[in-house]
Amino acid sequence: MPKQVDHQERRETIARALWRVVEQRGATHLTLRDVAQEAGISLGQLQHYFGSRAELLAFAMDLAGEQSSLRVGRALAGLGERPHPRAVLRAMLVELLPLHADARATSRMSAAYVLEALHDEGVHARARGSLLHGRAAVEQVVRQAIADGMIAADRDPVVETDLLLALTGFTTLLELNVVEPAAVLAAVDQYLDRLFAAGAGNPR
Amino acid sequence: MPKQVDHQERRETIARALWRVVEQRGATHLTLRDVAQEAGISLGQLQHYFGSRAELLAFAMDLAGEQSSLRVGRALAGLGERPHPRAVLRAMLVELLPLHADARATSRMSAAYVLEALHDEGVHARARGSLLHGRAAVEQVVRQAIADGMIAADRDPVVETDLLLALTGFTTLLELNVVEPAAVLAAVDQYLDRLFAAGAGNPR
Repeated sequence: MPKQVDHQERRETIARALWRVVEQRGATHLTLRDVAQEAGISLGQLQHYFGSRAELLAFAMDLAGEQSSLRVGRALAGLGERPHPRAVLRAMLVELLPLHADARATSRMSAAYVLEALHDEGVHARARGSLLHGRAAVEQVVRQAIADGMIAADRDPVVETDLLLALTGFTTLLELNVVEPAAVLAAVDQYLDRLFAAGAGNPR
Repeated sequence: MPKQVDHQERRETIARALWRVVEQRGATHLTLRDVAQEAGISLGQLQHYFGSRAELLAFAMDLAGEQSSLRVGRALAGLGERPHPRAVLRAMLVELLPLHADARATSRMSAAYVLEALHDEGVHARARGSLLHGRAAVEQVVRQAIADGMIAADRDPVVETDLLLALTGFTTLLELNVVEPAAVLAAVDQYLDRLFAAGAGNPR
């Protein structure tokens, strides 16, 4: 079905143009005209693929999520067959922070999405589902690390998962240039060192 | 100067109406008309006090910041003359999270402000200054607690300050109903317990 593939490819090209616009200017005042211009097509052509701003934003968010998962997967593949859970959590967490152009665009779209969710039930449900999905993935790694004695058995997996996700608050510190990327990575590393230092295999 | 007081009072009344609108609907699609309606005045009357949406938002942000500081101050005053630094940090951190109506409005305004900062240098400078100010206050408490042996001497005050501020990432988890308020407070308490458990006075 070459035609369908073309259609999907064109939609992805437009979504990537949207990422670039969001990375440069944020998603708040985003217009379809800006995205069409960045994609090098007319507004009419863009509207052939996406009927509304909301539809394009949803597609771009989904694609960004898939690409993030792929990047985490590639990072982990480089760590051998059974990567250490500390490395897995680090890769997941770092990918959520605006530390490179693609992650920055995803992070900015997500932030705009969360604000939009406050007055749109459909967006709220969609954003919540996506976050619950990511949360479950982190919790699974934490639970396994506790079961394997790499994180102390008295740590609560739910609390540890929530604290790890809460560290995405570094986003604002990065976006406002209050903390340098290197300092954020150093803080994340210290945090993970302490989490795993409490493991049975590494008694305090 | 009764007239000037009236003017300031009226501006505060309008700012509080804006908070309520933001708390209910978020700041992204905020209009001056909505705020005027909420304040029970005409759009023309509102424009007598605020020339633009940006001016009103900046005033409302400043007032929200002052009110937050007052709330933290009141919470600390209830803890005696020299409150424990753990209680001080907890009060500061909890006030930053959307756990009650006023803090929720402040949090939502801040989030919209950070997005606006991505494509407006003036807003970026203003938001950054405000965050640096809050950061310095947290760092001062952390440094004093280390000096007093309540947090272990080998903890880096800059890293600990950044990690505490990063926990404002709970905001998104709360706004999307992924984590309950009680679970957030429990996680914050566990985090602070561990930070202070490492103090010289409380050897591990």
